[in-house]
Amino acid sequence: MKLLSVNAGSSTLKFRMYEMPEEKVIVKGNFERIGIEGSHFAIKFDGKEVKEEVELKDHNDAARVLLEQLVKNNIVKSLAEIEAVGHRVVHGGSKYASSVLITDDVIKDISLLKDLAPLHNPAALKGIEAFKSNIPNAKMVACFDTAFHQTMDEEAYLYPVPYEWYQKYEVRKYGFHGMSHKFISEKLSNMLNKKANLIICHIGSGASISAIKEGKCLDTTMGFTPNAGVMMGTRSGDIDYSIISYLMKKADLSLEDVENKLNKESGLQGIVGFSDLRDIDDKFVAGEEKAVLGVNMYTTRMADYIAKYYLKLKGQVDAICFTAGVGENDDIIRREIIKKLEPLGIKIDDNINNGFMVRKGMEGIISTKDSKVPVYVLGTDEELMIARDTYDIVKD
Amino acid sequence: MKLLSVNAGSSTLKFRMYEMPEEKVIVKGNFERIGIEGSHFAIKFDGKEVKEEVELKDHNDAARVLLEQLVKNNIVKSLAEIEAVGHRVVHGGSKYASSVLITDDVIKDISLLKDLAPLHNPAALKGIEAFKSNIPNAKMVACFDTAFHQTMDEEAYLYPVPYEWYQKYEVRKYGFHGMSHKFISEKLSNMLNKKANLIICHIGSGASISAIKEGKCLDTTMGFTPNAGVMMGTRSGDIDYSIISYLMKKADLSLEDVENKLNKESGLQGIVGFSDLRDIDDKFVAGEEKAVLGVNMYTTRMADYIAKYYLKLKGQVDAICFTAGVGENDDIIRREIIKKLEPLGIKIDDNINNGFMVRKGMEGIISTKDSKVPVYVLGTDEELMIARDTYDIVKD
Repeated sequence: MKLLSVNAGSSTLKFRMYEMPEEKVIVKGNFERIGIEGSHFAIKFDGKEVKEEVELKDHNDAARVLLEQLVKNNIVKSLAEIEAVGHRVVHGGSKYASSVLITDDVIKDISLLKDLAPLHNPAALKGIEAFKSNIPNAKMVACFDTAFHQTMDEEAYLYPVPYEWYQKYEVRKYGFHGMSHKFISEKLSNMLNKKANLIICHIGSGASISAIKEGKCLDTTMGFTPNAGVMMGTRSGDIDYSIISYLMKKADLSLEDVENKLNKESGLQGIVGFSDLRDIDDKFVAGEEKAVLGVNMYTTRMADYIAKYYLKLKGQVDAICFTAGVGENDDIIRREIIKKLEPLGIKIDDNINNGFMVRKGMEGIISTKDSKVPVYVLGTDEELMIARDTYDIVKD
Repeated sequence: MKLLSVNAGSSTLKFRMYEMPEEKVIVKGNFERIGIEGSHFAIKFDGKEVKEEVELKDHNDAARVLLEQLVKNNIVKSLAEIEAVGHRVVHGGSKYASSVLITDDVIKDISLLKDLAPLHNPAALKGIEAFKSNIPNAKMVACFDTAFHQTMDEEAYLYPVPYEWYQKYEVRKYGFHGMSHKFISEKLSNMLNKKANLIICHIGSGASISAIKEGKCLDTTMGFTPNAGVMMGTRSGDIDYSIISYLMKKADLSLEDVENKLNKESGLQGIVGFSDLRDIDDKFVAGEEKAVLGVNMYTTRMADYIAKYYLKLKGQVDAICFTAGVGENDDIIRREIIKKLEPLGIKIDDNINNGFMVRKGMEGIISTKDSKVPVYVLGTDEELMIARDTYDIVKD
């Protein structure tokens, strides 16, 4: 069966087409600047790449061009071959604890959740509508970034705020990066041949850590929004909320201005002046003051949450796993985090860790043999997770 | 030498008079509803209590009445006997790392810091001016709640926000409850006969935890304001800051409204509906759902910070200490926190802990002999700490 795994942003659309259940990627690509002057796309298949500038007024245009290209390049003979499309949807609220076949009711729910994900859910809806109108016979599946975390209990997902904020306004922890945490949780449970207890560190430009008990999420660092938890590339993560009103008065900024700066000019960017760790690591090694400060702040916050989840799992942790761009490929950041975990008996093997990169095809354990908990580095694949969930739902 | 230890709030003034260096409390009392109809005072000495309703237009009136009462009741023969007054001042900013003799410059600094402590510093200034005008010959000392935490390094006190917020607007972690953390740190260092590595849990209606290395503060849970860190009686502590703007829109509240609710209707109050643990503990023991939820959320957040500071101290912790109203007297809360620390090898001795209360004159260790870190319960005394600092500064 051929299916598409689609991730629609406000002006972008990324996709992969899979042959399932073989999990073979047949073609992948991305459409950029949708609805903006200079729109273009690139698709890759069979070692070839097609790149074109083409007017894309909206997501419907992007889907139409995508499908035309599939036929034109003989990737599919007819569009009827595409039996399903799995869509990444950021917010499924408290209602969706798993991926789901898209019906009119599901579309209505995604739309109603737009207050909780004002940038993301409307974009996902555009993607869904675009494929619905271009290949109406394909089944559509929604894969929510929040769904995997719905197993958290009240104690983990409630904030210590007036209880009616939860009852009336749905203020609670949702958690994000769910498709990645689920992918790694299943991968490690397969490798360890058990429903494992895990601490998963998804560290990319955004970052979140999850505590998994027997394959189910107990807690995660992102919260009501993806702005909470650990320090990230450009996001602050946890801060004293009172900074916001103080700064509005002192610096004469609007609430929106301050939130924008907390989202886009904070984290590593705020401290070091760069958000990409490839730029920062060299400066860290060279001992540049701001880079050292930034990396120490960044890795301390990660280690702190790992310690918190170590308690949450009562010390019964089968594995800690690093994944996503930074977690998979940045040996310096991994070392700085794990060094801070030595009081828990968790020890890195520098000989293995140095230069260990999923980008180079490496996956496995980077801790010492006597480390109290083994530490893994594994590649994540959110697109494949979407394809798997989609296949599972539509195959019968 | 006789000196006063004074804590002035916006409409209150609490005091103790000490004979130093003997540290004997000669008289103590409090003035309430200053500047409000129905103002009154109560003072206690020699087993007696004097209570009166009296018009107190301002703090100057309160100081005048206080001093008159000392003479009238033969507690002092003349006001000249009072050689010094130590004043609790909430905010000393980045400038004051210890208590200090009050000069015109110090008064100016406290006044300039009012943006950082808009409720507290102006009240402290009223107290200082009141005693300056009534006993101009007594030396005045300012004891800052932030000072003890000034030994934190940049990595601990900076937030992952744009660096210029620190440079231009002094946005950083200050920490509070400093006089209490200092008192306990010195008390334990004396008991252990070394500059000790400690985790101090000051848990009252407000609550903060500090990591102390060799007698110096490394980190603390309160932040830019006292609203950050652990969950408290009526304050939320750490939350996802994005809740604020969402709620303003959804519930049509002003920023001030939301902050007010986060300060006064959150924490245990928000979850359980009560903020006083004496009301909550019985319901917790009876298994009432909201009380169980609230206590679990409350104690998890405390345990999480203890684990964080355990890493910060690289596992080299000489003692964990509970203090302040709840920490000193609430065996249930202590048990629920320490139970969560078992993965660190920290174990409570229930036979000792049950009913162990500073209120009943008990102080000491409540952990088992094989606990990896001994856990103490000790009484704190911020007023005495102010008296000691004041005496040290004025004695020569």
